[in-house]
Amino acid sequence: MKIVIVDESPIRAAILEEGLREAGFVEVERIAETHNLLKRVYAIDPDVILIDLENPSRDELEQMFQVSRAVRRPVAMFVDQSDAASIQASVDAGVSAYIVGGLKKERIKSILDLCVSRFNAFAKLQSELERAKSDLQERKTIDRAKGILMKTKNLSEEEAYRLLRGVAMRESKKIADIAQSVITASELLK
Amino acid sequence: MKIVIVDESPIRAAILEEGLREAGFVEVERIAETHNLLKRVYAIDPDVILIDLENPSRDELEQMFQVSRAVRRPVAMFVDQSDAASIQASVDAGVSAYIVGGLKKERIKSILDLCVSRFNAFAKLQSELERAKSDLQERKTIDRAKGILMKTKNLSEEEAYRLLRGVAMRESKKIADIAQSVITASELLK
Repeated sequence: MKIVIVDESPIRAAILEEGLREAGFVEVERIAETHNLLKRVYAIDPDVILIDLENPSRDELEQMFQVSRAVRRPVAMFVDQSDAASIQASVDAGVSAYIVGGLKKERIKSILDLCVSRFNAFAKLQSELERAKSDLQERKTIDRAKGILMKTKNLSEEEAYRLLRGVAMRESKKIADIAQSVITASELLK
Repeated sequence: MKIVIVDESPIRAAILEEGLREAGFVEVERIAETHNLLKRVYAIDPDVILIDLENPSRDELEQMFQVSRAVRRPVAMFVDQSDAASIQASVDAGVSAYIVGGLKKERIKSILDLCVSRFNAFAKLQSELERAKSDLQERKTIDRAKGILMKTKNLSEEEAYRLLRGVAMRESKKIADIAQSVITASELLK
């Protein structure tokens, strides 16, 4: 597992690094400079990102939340203090573990495990939601296309569906894609 | 906000209670006895549940995870040590904050905020997923019923849909419920 530590403070980064080393993690890189941070993170392409901020300003915090939203990776964030609004913002930004005042090397391993487990649980739920939404959308698209074919070609529902499916098979495409073409074409030809 | 602390240790419970009091929470009750725990929790009907376990056995931990799965409330759990499997199990059980070795009164407020924010985010995603799944299911049911009506009563798709909708309006029911009746009846009458 490749881990990136984002930390401007060498002393605090050393706590994280030691905790990780003692827990048996060897692939650990530190980013000490937050300029162009997202680009630096992408260049390393880590499995987990630990961000330590000590006492961040609103802007610094917001910058890190943007990173969290962008990376689609487990993110654990360490700060020394926080308020309810920032805590809410961390959850909204998909930060999987937000540790307020608890930077201790003995705790790093369990925070890392928690961060990864929670990220995966959330990602699974999100992908199920995306799938369910797209299934529904596809079904609507196919229904609309069927309706168009039934009307213009005077087909039964079953015949319209078979026609869509036949073209999809022949062109190795999804039925919903063919259905979308039918809808688009019928709007162009109106 | 009503908070329940589940803690067999008076000393550790006092840390939690003090942290909550200093953060301004007044409605705090402690359950010191884990026998019939779920019943006791329901009797209080808290908004948040803090469970402190020090060094739980596997069985104790599993009992608490069962509580977490049942209550549908934000749960924060404090333990002194843990392993990756228990951490994963805590996430699976919907524990919103699982704090390993970090019981300090100064941290209680932010842990509580985090626990509530994260619980709400997860609950929102879950209810969106349930809605999307049930929308899809309803659409499938309506489609099947339409097909049955089209065949048996020799209707067009539009006529079949209008028939379902008309009955639903007259009986103040959902179209999907009427559609389900059509499917059930057609299976009975086969």
